[in-house]
Amino acid sequence: MALIVQKYGGSSVADVAKIQSVARRIADSAPGHHVVVVVSAMGKTTDGLVSLAHQLAPVPDPREMDMLLATGEQVTIALLAMALQALGFKARSFTGAQAGLRTDRAHTKARIARITAERVRAALDAGAIAVVAGFQGASDEDEITTLGRGGSDLTAVALAAALKAELCEIYTDVDGVYTADPNVVPEARKLPRVAYDEMLEMASLGAKVLQARSVEFAKKYGVTVHVRSTFKPDAGTIVTREERAMEDVVVTGITHDRSQAKISLLRVPDRPGIAAQVFGAVGTKNIVVDMIVQNISRDGYTDISFTVPRGDVARAHTLLDEIGRAVGAEKTVHDERVAKVSIVGVGMRSHSGVAARMFSALSKEGINIQMISTSEIAVSCVIEDKYAELAVRALHDAFELGREGVRE
Amino acid sequence: MALIVQKYGGSSVADVAKIQSVARRIADSAPGHHVVVVVSAMGKTTDGLVSLAHQLAPVPDPREMDMLLATGEQVTIALLAMALQALGFKARSFTGAQAGLRTDRAHTKARIARITAERVRAALDAGAIAVVAGFQGASDEDEITTLGRGGSDLTAVALAAALKAELCEIYTDVDGVYTADPNVVPEARKLPRVAYDEMLEMASLGAKVLQARSVEFAKKYGVTVHVRSTFKPDAGTIVTREERAMEDVVVTGITHDRSQAKISLLRVPDRPGIAAQVFGAVGTKNIVVDMIVQNISRDGYTDISFTVPRGDVARAHTLLDEIGRAVGAEKTVHDERVAKVSIVGVGMRSHSGVAARMFSALSKEGINIQMISTSEIAVSCVIEDKYAELAVRALHDAFELGREGVRE
Repeated sequence: MALIVQKYGGSSVADVAKIQSVARRIADSAPGHHVVVVVSAMGKTTDGLVSLAHQLAPVPDPREMDMLLATGEQVTIALLAMALQALGFKARSFTGAQAGLRTDRAHTKARIARITAERVRAALDAGAIAVVAGFQGASDEDEITTLGRGGSDLTAVALAAALKAELCEIYTDVDGVYTADPNVVPEARKLPRVAYDEMLEMASLGAKVLQARSVEFAKKYGVTVHVRSTFKPDAGTIVTREERAMEDVVVTGITHDRSQAKISLLRVPDRPGIAAQVFGAVGTKNIVVDMIVQNISRDGYTDISFTVPRGDVARAHTLLDEIGRAVGAEKTVHDERVAKVSIVGVGMRSHSGVAARMFSALSKEGINIQMISTSEIAVSCVIEDKYAELAVRALHDAFELGREGVRE
Repeated sequence: MALIVQKYGGSSVADVAKIQSVARRIADSAPGHHVVVVVSAMGKTTDGLVSLAHQLAPVPDPREMDMLLATGEQVTIALLAMALQALGFKARSFTGAQAGLRTDRAHTKARIARITAERVRAALDAGAIAVVAGFQGASDEDEITTLGRGGSDLTAVALAAALKAELCEIYTDVDGVYTADPNVVPEARKLPRVAYDEMLEMASLGAKVLQARSVEFAKKYGVTVHVRSTFKPDAGTIVTREERAMEDVVVTGITHDRSQAKISLLRVPDRPGIAAQVFGAVGTKNIVVDMIVQNISRDGYTDISFTVPRGDVARAHTLLDEIGRAVGAEKTVHDERVAKVSIVGVGMRSHSGVAARMFSALSKEGINIQMISTSEIAVSCVIEDKYAELAVRALHDAFELGREGVRE
């Protein structure tokens, strides 16, 4: 009997009625399958717990934070198991620790070390639906840990890998992965299939459907992931290994990200070790740098620009001012009114001229490109924030993503 | 360094401000002591979780119920640890399982099998305050279990026994054990000390300060318990082993209990085995019988009366009707308008005439006694409910419990 893992997010289990509706949805899959269900905390529960903690301490102890937050999922698994039992199914709930999800000791951002899942397997063998708390695990010292953002998706993918599931279904409040954000591009199409690498680029470039960590894990262990809507019966998007047909399409999707800010160090004396000095310092402050561009040297001086999360820009600017003075830069400036637009597609590997087509499309709309970065399957441009939607629409048109039946 | 265990109930930790106030109270005890703190779920949390469960299933699965309810205390321990850390103390929280509280597998009413408390000891040795979730434990199969009503007190007493604590302080919303309910008898006095056996009688007779289970455990392992107020600094009542001076006082306190109802089986043919047949049947339905009185046989017939919790009276009556017909009883009647008043004191062991003095005091007030039962250190009478307060005041006077300095 084939095994499927299903994951339901917080908005899918926000109240008793929604938990009952999820139970009915699981019931539809149960005949003929072994089913493992992974759930998040109900609705805004985690936010509520975080707020309680912050009333007690500005920076709560990470170990105690994990002790606190892990209760959210534990409530959901018990209630969902009860709801499944009320429908006449055998069901057993398991905390992360009980499911054998072992992590390192990095509280609030633990990494999965291994999954034994013995008790989950035993429950399935006994004909029960196993309901597992997402987002949490336990260290070898039996400390409760949590996996950080997107942790419940990761639990689902990791359990699917450990149990060699046929499929990992991620039920969410969007119904799949689109060629662009449908709020920005009305003619955006739902993609029936995307490759892991495309999904990775899209995840890290701002498409919020699935966190990059989960996609990396799925890719590493070859887990087929189906991202679909909790509230609609339609098929969503299958995230899977690259297939030959995918290469026929040059660009699969357009993403945009407005959560970044740009910082520039102007007229820095161009000596070896400058970049290391700058980004070493930024790294020690736990500021995550995304794009980095260093211009060609002129008269022995260069400009260094990079992007950071907007929330970190004040901290980063203060830090860069100091570093800038130390390395003899003329000044440090920052700009929060920027957006990053990107084109993504595994087909780029075998097609040339893709970047040029992107730049030309932006130029035609009079949009100035401030920074450029490229990877094997993506090209990203930082532009002025107010042009973000216009740029996404222009690129969606330029790469003809609105056409029906481009990739089925 | 002496070790004390402190337990704070749900109303003491009902919100963030109260948790901070409990943290300050703990901080006052911490210098010079190892401190282990046991806490309940915040305020009405448990009721809220029970209500969610009942929306999903009329009789939720006990295993899933324990999974659900255990989250309540887990939230409190994390928040209290954070609050203690914010005051500059080292603190570590532990779930029941982490504290090594091992139980049998009787979900929702588990019994403690043993306590290892290794991690609690390690935390104390490392100079930390250990904060332990009350009410919960784990079976040898690593299933989460709960101890049932009064479970947090039991956790505290059991930890105090396992860790050989000097003292177990139970902080609650009353400030000690009184000679009678102060709401009924304004001149009731707080008792500085009571013996385990007295406390046991008082607990089972309706004084709600401390559950009988916890007192039994404290008696068995010789744990000295101090029942005191969370909100006042005054000393409360010490529950401890019997001391010689206690015997000088005949009656220590008056209790009353209005939670029972009386059921009578009238004109039952008096043959051997009747009582076994009746109470065997009642027992299989999990109805807890308190007092039982069987009158002297007349013409080969007898009457059997007993009390049950009011919530069970309808169920018990239906059952008794059946049994009554089977054993040839004339009819079954029940009465919910009854109260039980009791006098309690270890001094009764060495004094005679105590019961007579009680009956005479009630008679003087024109109160009819419907049922009587006695134990070595208590006498209880069932009377009409409307006389309950009058009876308690009359007995408090008759045994001169309002006098100052009776037992210090």
